[in-house]
Amino acid sequence: MTDLETINQIIQGKLQGNPDYPIAGIQGIFEAGPNEITFFIKDQLPIEPILAGAIIVPLGFKSEYPNLIYVTDPYVAFAKLLHFFNPHQPFCQGIDPSARVAESAIISENVSVGHHSYIGDHCRIGANTEIHAQVTIYPHVSIGKNCLIYSNVVIREAAIIGDDVIIQPGAIIGADGFGFARDEQGNPLKIPQVGKVIIGNHCEIGANTCIDRSTLASTIISDQVKTDNLVQIGHNVIIGQGTTICAMCGIGGSTVLGKNVVLGGFVGIADHLTIADGVKVAAKTGVSNSVKQANQIISGYPHQEIGKWRKSQVIIRNLDDYVDRIKALESKLKELEAKIPVEPIT
Amino acid sequence: MTDLETINQIIQGKLQGNPDYPIAGIQGIFEAGPNEITFFIKDQLPIEPILAGAIIVPLGFKSEYPNLIYVTDPYVAFAKLLHFFNPHQPFCQGIDPSARVAESAIISENVSVGHHSYIGDHCRIGANTEIHAQVTIYPHVSIGKNCLIYSNVVIREAAIIGDDVIIQPGAIIGADGFGFARDEQGNPLKIPQVGKVIIGNHCEIGANTCIDRSTLASTIISDQVKTDNLVQIGHNVIIGQGTTICAMCGIGGSTVLGKNVVLGGFVGIADHLTIADGVKVAAKTGVSNSVKQANQIISGYPHQEIGKWRKSQVIIRNLDDYVDRIKALESKLKELEAKIPVEPIT
Amino acid sequence: MTDLETINQIIQGKLQGNPDYPIAGIQGIFEAGPNEITFFIKDQLPIEPILAGAIIVPLGFKSEYPNLIYVTDPYVAFAKLLHFFNPHQPFCQGIDPSARVAESAIISENVSVGHHSYIGDHCRIGANTEIHAQVTIYPHVSIGKNCLIYSNVVIREAAIIGDDVIIQPGAIIGADGFGFARDEQGNPLKIPQVGKVIIGNHCEIGANTCIDRSTLASTIISDQVKTDNLVQIGHNVIIGQGTTICAMCGIGGSTVLGKNVVLGGFVGIADHLTIADGVKVAAKTGVSNSVKQANQIISGYPHQEIGKWRKSQVIIRNLDDYVDRIKALESKLKELEAKIPVEPIT
Repeated sequence: MTDLETINQIIQGKLQGNPDYPIAGIQGIFEAGPNEITFFIKDQLPIEPILAGAIIVPLGFKSEYPNLIYVTDPYVAFAKLLHFFNPHQPFCQGIDPSARVAESAIISENVSVGHHSYIGDHCRIGANTEIHAQVTIYPHVSIGKNCLIYSNVVIREAAIIGDDVIIQPGAIIGADGFGFARDEQGNPLKIPQVGKVIIGNHCEIGANTCIDRSTLASTIISDQVKTDNLVQIGHNVIIGQGTTICAMCGIGGSTVLGKNVVLGGFVGIADHLTIADGVKVAAKTGVSNSVKQANQIISGYPHQEIGKWRKSQVIIRNLDDYVDRIKALESKLKELEAKIPVEPIT
Repeated sequence: MTDLETINQIIQGKLQGNPDYPIAGIQGIFEAGPNEITFFIKDQLPIEPILAGAIIVPLGFKSEYPNLIYVTDPYVAFAKLLHFFNPHQPFCQGIDPSARVAESAIISENVSVGHHSYIGDHCRIGANTEIHAQVTIYPHVSIGKNCLIYSNVVIREAAIIGDDVIIQPGAIIGADGFGFARDEQGNPLKIPQVGKVIIGNHCEIGANTCIDRSTLASTIISDQVKTDNLVQIGHNVIIGQGTTICAMCGIGGSTVLGKNVVLGGFVGIADHLTIADGVKVAAKTGVSNSVKQANQIISGYPHQEIGKWRKSQVIIRNLDDYVDRIKALESKLKELEAKIPVEPIT
Repeated sequence: MTDLETINQIIQGKLQGNPDYPIAGIQGIFEAGPNEITFFIKDQLPIEPILAGAIIVPLGFKSEYPNLIYVTDPYVAFAKLLHFFNPHQPFCQGIDPSARVAESAIISENVSVGHHSYIGDHCRIGANTEIHAQVTIYPHVSIGKNCLIYSNVVIREAAIIGDDVIIQPGAIIGADGFGFARDEQGNPLKIPQVGKVIIGNHCEIGANTCIDRSTLASTIISDQVKTDNLVQIGHNVIIGQGTTICAMCGIGGSTVLGKNVVLGGFVGIADHLTIADGVKVAAKTGVSNSVKQANQIISGYPHQEIGKWRKSQVIIRNLDDYVDRIKALESKLKELEAKIPVEPIT
């Protein structure tokens, strides 16, 4: 149990109400009880009853509610209080006896390695990093500090992972890129994938997401990139800082995404393309050509600027009307032709 | 080896033929031999030779075949006999010495835990449930009775799983939902995901499928929901009873699916939508608005009622014809204009 | 360190230059240094400076570069030299003491089994095959020789895997196919999946890819099939020799793909279809009918021959122009009608 004033200080807000009011947690607007705080983003409180002990509201919010904390962004305050009320619980303490850590691995202070995990030769694990259960880390991998590697993650050879990275369960970092030549008999000949994956700082990789190692050189995921679950990132891809990738996206080999790009769900991007900074790609878009103009929003397959795409979609939904109009034109024209006075050929 | 009468009793049919006829198994119509039974759904037997010892057929089926069992639904009878001839083999007996089960976990009678699996603090595992090899169950998870948890499944903190649930290998239950705020500097700030996943009774979750834990409250999978492989279910989603989700579908956060909804493969549903009971969504559909009318069939992106979508698709396949017709209209109109007697401007 | 003549012999080329020139590795055209060889496919060297010690070029290539090796296919030579300079490192030696191998399993010479892996009853593992860490192999599985089974792979009951097969991390071979009947109460009744998966020789299966076991009979992946990551292959599917499947594809149950078919990313193929030999399916295509004509290229949803599809797409991108043209026709026609001399109704 804490009090409103403490919470006010955490979120650096402006408190209007009782600073000693006791608060035990944070909940949604309709779920919060008298000892819980909630947050609200819209202009006006809903008419349904609210039982929350206090509400975090945007600056300038008008309300008679007893306890209010005004902040610039209530959603950011919500995130901070969720962290405050739910402090991270380490998965385990130290290196579990059932884990296998190679003698040549360098393990910093306060690292924990869960049950049955495996850390190969010459790996380096930074301070305070947690490796949960059943994780396999192949040789020569380097992981920074304060990372969270969830269970059943596999990290393949020589990958380099920065600080404060979270890898959700089942993600596969560094599987072989998909590359084959055809030999003299026309049979596929595997191109060995001997490059690596580099992941920057403050990244989060979703569950069962796959990021392939490069043929040569590196597949690069820059700082603060966030991917959702079941995403496929091909070999030699480079993803710029702050880019966000929703679930079920696939990015073809050697494609370069700029900074702060946003991909909606199910976006497919072909190989060897370049996507400019700040481009937003609507869900289900198929990108088969480079996108050179920064900050535009695109949609469709093949992709278009989203306004143009929406226009096309409205027409497509009414194509039968247009077909009817063409038919009407044709029959009217016939009618007219019949009426036109016959002119002698001169 | 059993006999036809025994089989007849299992499937509660009407036997026409020799009740003592020996049957050793069930196979497809062309694969079944003289000591095997098969089933048939259509009106008339195929002309190719059939060697099966007996055939399960729908009521009213006309045939001279020696051994027939009449049932309402031969496919249901087929399912029952597959269960009969292939009784479940437990993966292992009891708790394997290499498994790690927390002392605070409550394990009911006849539970088996496979090699190298891990069960965290305060978990509860119901009677007769099988946990196979390399499974990780995080703390405070509750699993009901008669469940089958295949190898390499990960179940994250505090998930609640009902009775008679099957989770195929590699599925990830309860990874963090994908949620970020932007802090004052514009950097992504993780929204902690402290809710849980609740899965009802008689559900089946496909291989490598991901169901995310909620931010607050719960992601809810109701009774008898079946998902195929590589499905993504976002945080705070609610899925109604009996809904079926084919492979490669993705459902955005906080979306609510009704009862007995069916999603074909590759269906994407945006976040915060509501899909009414009994709606059928054709493969590859993109749903970006709520679907309020129950039991309709939809397709396309953006989705439409399937009949209307099909009409549009027929027109789209012939768009070049319509373009030709527009061009023909234009040239005819020009011709006509040339022919129209010039009228003096009045 | 080796020399150019040795390399020339490996790739069976025609060397023009110094056979004793020392070479330590292979790199991309702009990354290679003086002690590295590179390769080039196009007609003319780029104008940017090249520092490579030698270049592999196609027959007939014109250049004054000091050390050149001429070959039919420089990309094949590149693949061969990547293998030469990066000889495979075994994951571990022999059977790790922490692995569990059933007594009834038959393990050939020179097999390695990594940390915490599990091999069930009556399995057979062929010579020189490597099974990495945290792998689960269910009972009665047969794996050929020279295979590489990466960490966290699960292979379900009775699967048969050929020689020289590579299975990337997290792949699930033989999860239950997705099949349910509806019982008398309308509730889903699981169809037991008691068939198996058969994978031929020289196949590669991508990370987190799922190949389901069949209901009866077998799901068959023929020789030299290569799948990328996160692919879903349904039960009873048959895939012909040499077929290549890119990431995020899904193939419905009982569908048959011919030989040397190529599926681009995100291709969905419905169940019970047949795709002819050599068909190429463009990315994001939805195939809902069988494709009977061999070697054609298809695209779109529903799919079309790619030329026709591209034509439609060009029209779709300009639909608003055509709508304008229809409107123009309509107003002109009205104008014309007004001008037409009134004819008395006869």
